[in-house]
Amino acid sequence: MTEKTIRIDIGKDLFGANEEAATENATSFKKHGILAVDIMGSVGTGKTQLIETLCERLSGRHRILMLAGDLATTIDADRVASHGVDTVQINTGTACHLDARMIQVALREVNLSDYDLLFIENVGNLICPAGYSLGAAKKIVVVSVTEGPYMIRKHPLTIKRADLVVINKIDLAQALEFNIESLEEDIREVDSKMPILRVSAKTGVGIEDLMTTLGL
Amino acid sequence: MTEKTIRIDIGKDLFGANEEAATENATSFKKHGILAVDIMGSVGTGKTQLIETLCERLSGRHRILMLAGDLATTIDADRVASHGVDTVQINTGTACHLDARMIQVALREVNLSDYDLLFIENVGNLICPAGYSLGAAKKIVVVSVTEGPYMIRKHPLTIKRADLVVINKIDLAQALEFNIESLEEDIREVDSKMPILRVSAKTGVGIEDLMTTLGL
Repeated sequence: MTEKTIRIDIGKDLFGANEEAATENATSFKKHGILAVDIMGSVGTGKTQLIETLCERLSGRHRILMLAGDLATTIDADRVASHGVDTVQINTGTACHLDARMIQVALREVNLSDYDLLFIENVGNLICPAGYSLGAAKKIVVVSVTEGPYMIRKHPLTIKRADLVVINKIDLAQALEFNIESLEEDIREVDSKMPILRVSAKTGVGIEDLMTTLGL
Repeated sequence: MTEKTIRIDIGKDLFGANEEAATENATSFKKHGILAVDIMGSVGTGKTQLIETLCERLSGRHRILMLAGDLATTIDADRVASHGVDTVQINTGTACHLDARMIQVALREVNLSDYDLLFIENVGNLICPAGYSLGAAKKIVVVSVTEGPYMIRKHPLTIKRADLVVINKIDLAQALEFNIESLEEDIREVDSKMPILRVSAKTGVGIEDLMTTLGL
């Protein structure tokens, strides 16, 4: 390599910096006794409604903070805040995922000692968020019976990196003639030991199981 | 700027190179008398089914090529190929969108003189594809009544860059208690002149209107 040839590997540097920040976040959450949950999924899979339903059940016995990732709006943070939960909106502009440093910037706005449970709603898509660890102890992927039959097979990497897959909106499965068994087979094909929960954030079905699985 | 300070603006370079390739593609399509249509939308909105339905109606009078963008699978290209249409699968790995140079690489596999209509199915999400022109004459955004009420408000930039918005799966609107009027208002708030079509790729409702709008 001559003196004039300087190669800057932006991708590697960014990922490296992200991993470092994610580790810092994880350490900070542990120090403050906070369970942090990173919730990923496409637009319209019901991530926000799931967080709302969890907050309704848990706000009596947990001090909850919610970070909402979205390109431009505050719709999701506003919905969760309406349940009396503290929220911080992170608007990413054109970025299709949150990263660990965005979480650090957002957490400067709050006092971590005030909370013991953190829900992070990632930007709505199943591709980009999987590549960026935020330092959360649990990564949930929310899929929905409204997404058609191929969303698992098209996103194996995202599923692989999850700790838990929630199949949401199961109350609509019959109307949509959706085959949940087949979807679960797709998930097991990616990871035979992946915990899978059938949930309806709307009706409340499966929410108790989800809380138990998260140790809440 | 000293001799040792070299700044490489990767983002600008990539976008610049993409615009150049997109212009080349547009010129090539025009030269060969090909109408190229870039179809964007989230996973599960029915992009592939829409292309299948269009191919069924149009394959008698058009010579159709379909390029399918997907992270890893050939599911969509296989579905369209089953209708006797030529397809090229572009697997993007972890990239959340197609770009104009990927189209150039894919088109090396075919003889453009064999076609007059090109459907490009972009990678399934509503965020990334909007930033990358492919050189297509028409950009269609496909949204679905299964995506919940906020998908337009969360992706105004994607809508702004479209030539046409297709609201798909309207046959499910009633079962999902979905308010199509409200969604159309959201679209008009972004662009008051945006053409909007209500379609069911499954039942065929609205497909004739779509073909007329595309001049097919």
